[in-house]
Amino acid sequence: MNQNTVDMILKFRDDRDWKQFHNPTDLAISISLEAAELLEIFQWSGTDMQCRDKLPHMKEEIADVLVYCIQLCDVLDLDPEEIIRTKMAGNCAKYPVDKAYGSAKKYTELK
Amino acid sequence: MNQNTVDMILKFRDDRDWKQFHNPTDLAISISLEAAELLEIFQWSGTDMQCRDKLPHMKEEIADVLVYCIQLCDVLDLDPEEIIRTKMAGNCAKYPVDKAYGSAKKYTELK
Amino acid sequence: MNQNTVDMILKFRDDRDWKQFHNPTDLAISISLEAAELLEIFQWSGTDMQCRDKLPHMKEEIADVLVYCIQLCDVLDLDPEEIIRTKMAGNCAKYPVDKAYGSAKKYTELK
Amino acid sequence: MNQNTVDMILKFRDDRDWKQFHNPTDLAISISLEAAELLEIFQWSGTDMQCRDKLPHMKEEIADVLVYCIQLCDVLDLDPEEIIRTKMAGNCAKYPVDKAYGSAKKYTELK
Repeated sequence: MNQNTVDMILKFRDDRDWKQFHNPTDLAISISLEAAELLEIFQWSGTDMQCRDKLPHMKEEIADVLVYCIQLCDVLDLDPEEIIRTKMAGNCAKYPVDKAYGSAKKYTELK
Repeated sequence: MNQNTVDMILKFRDDRDWKQFHNPTDLAISISLEAAELLEIFQWSGTDMQCRDKLPHMKEEIADVLVYCIQLCDVLDLDPEEIIRTKMAGNCAKYPVDKAYGSAKKYTELK
Repeated sequence: MNQNTVDMILKFRDDRDWKQFHNPTDLAISISLEAAELLEIFQWSGTDMQCRDKLPHMKEEIADVLVYCIQLCDVLDLDPEEIIRTKMAGNCAKYPVDKAYGSAKKYTELK
Repeated sequence: MNQNTVDMILKFRDDRDWKQFHNPTDLAISISLEAAELLEIFQWSGTDMQCRDKLPHMKEEIADVLVYCIQLCDVLDLDPEEIIRTKMAGNCAKYPVDKAYGSAKKYTELK
């Protein structure tokens, strides 16, 4: 994440004195709620959904999820890039290419 | 987002030929499910939760949310940083500092 | 809801002295988490999902959602049947048959 | 669930010819979205939330979750009461009173 982007998010929060509300539980709830607002765009859409019409709305909801994730990382003193890289290293071990290639199975079901 | 991090995520997907599963609906569902796994860490914790014990688990779940957001941005051809900056500009207009300072109210309830 | 079923749920809770944990926030979180576990059954399934294979798992997750709803109703002193009937009466007003027939639109978009 | 209540829900759906939209995936998504709307009432509320102010809104959202659960049961040909009773029997086995009494631990963590 570009430091300017992170700074913009944290400055927005601090300019409004909102850090007092940003306990981890409420931020985790907020991530979940924004994820639901994103998912709502796809409700009743079946397979015929014309994504493109909904793109402006999707952009906003994906951004909301990302912004709350960055705010949660800040209060927990985590670096978003670092936790992603660590998780991806774990995923590589759980999903070896030769077993996972072309398969949507969960790692617990791979043989 | 550092380009190396994004590349690591997309290479992981492409090495396993998983882009075929990555339609926007299933990615939006996945973001919502990972957000729930993050929230589950806080279930029944009340206000006494000792976050620090749960930090390793939180890191993984926040990372999962971020990874699926980046994958959804990729299939929709969106730049994560750009949609965040656009959203934050909108938030600044919706939540003027003088009205929103120190208040947890939604912008529709600010006076 | 049959009173025997409600009684079974509340007796289960009280036999274990769990009412102390059942504040409305944690019950609302729990409903959301169980709904996510239900949704997870459909992740990556596309349109070809063979529901029937997953039916035993679905039964459990739908039951979990219902059980937490009944427990939340209990702590808020609500009657599940009554709130459903009131809501359905409201839905009938929001979605008049002549406008809503065969349409998946939200009531705010009906003309 | 009282048969009159179930009938009211299904009649509402059928009067509007909406069964065509009620595939299990979209109903599972809908349950998750309504659960998020319920949870949203508790966002930023901390422990001081005055539930009573929010009760009319809660009633509506709990009802929405229940209604979609009943609709999902209908398309999957499940009896809500029966799946609840089966699940509760399983919960009794997973959470024996002597081990689970007064404990908020998951059954996998009980000793």
